[in-house]
Amino acid sequence: MLRIILDQDDVLADTHGKLAQIVHTEFGLDLPEDTFSHQPFQAVLSDADQKKLYKIIHQKGFFTDIPVIKDAQEVVKALSEKYEVFVGTAAMEFPSSFREKYDWLQQHFPFIHWRNIVFCGDKSILHADYLIDDMPRNLKTFSGKGLLFNAPHNLQETGYERVMSWQEIATKLL
Amino acid sequence: MLRIILDQDDVLADTHGKLAQIVHTEFGLDLPEDTFSHQPFQAVLSDADQKKLYKIIHQKGFFTDIPVIKDAQEVVKALSEKYEVFVGTAAMEFPSSFREKYDWLQQHFPFIHWRNIVFCGDKSILHADYLIDDMPRNLKTFSGKGLLFNAPHNLQETGYERVMSWQEIATKLL
Repeated sequence: MLRIILDQDDVLADTHGKLAQIVHTEFGLDLPEDTFSHQPFQAVLSDADQKKLYKIIHQKGFFTDIPVIKDAQEVVKALSEKYEVFVGTAAMEFPSSFREKYDWLQQHFPFIHWRNIVFCGDKSILHADYLIDDMPRNLKTFSGKGLLFNAPHNLQETGYERVMSWQEIATKLL
Repeated sequence: MLRIILDQDDVLADTHGKLAQIVHTEFGLDLPEDTFSHQPFQAVLSDADQKKLYKIIHQKGFFTDIPVIKDAQEVVKALSEKYEVFVGTAAMEFPSSFREKYDWLQQHFPFIHWRNIVFCGDKSILHADYLIDDMPRNLKTFSGKGLLFNAPHNLQETGYERVMSWQEIATKLL
């Protein structure tokens, strides 16, 4: 069976969406509703507001209620019947997130066994046939086939095959 | 730089030693002091006592105060100047241990960056040049060079190159 590693934030979990929501409702900036659907936070927020947002990610509970990305559950379930599916997430940057990220996966992707979950920092230590990730730096060091999951912070990247949605992943891999 | 992955329990941390101590002081079995220095718990304890021990591993705080294996700190420090050193530990089996295992590493091996720490289940997803591990099943699926760190539960294993101590690792790899 071929192996696929799936990134968690901004591939399974709509972390960017939750952060955008927080900026819109709590930062008092009066920005158009679709501001962050096509550009990263760095392009819009002041340094001080970026720091504020980074602190929010570190707060207890941040990772508990992140929405699931559209169609991820159904497609990952189908993938797991044809591939060995792993989740590989750079959780080490946020030590207080460990348990929350684990529980989130158990809640929304209960068919992914704990043996197939990886919390790491540098993903170049991971080896599989496919990696689906929103971060070009993770695809750069990957020895298998990388797919760049479309996100506002990677729109300028042209070096990797881009997938726009879980439906597109289903078309490609199922 | 070549990469080395080090297992945490029974390679860096004397987890077996802490468990043996607990059995001797809390289980009321009146066993000779060296009982667990040359045989695994399964060879001595009843099923009920094994279950009791397994529950203790899951208790909050279990992983906070495990002693460091002799010479591990000095040798890993020296290795980290010649190799890229990662820690790869099957922490997913014990979700309440995540933060404790991370903090333990920060405390005793502060020179290992969080980017180089991996919590996983199935280690066959990891790729490096060397893996030092006490579990034959982890060496079995490893594509690089595996070294079996001597432990009471692997004494019968003959399929892998065995290392008896961190001093022996220093001699081999430095």
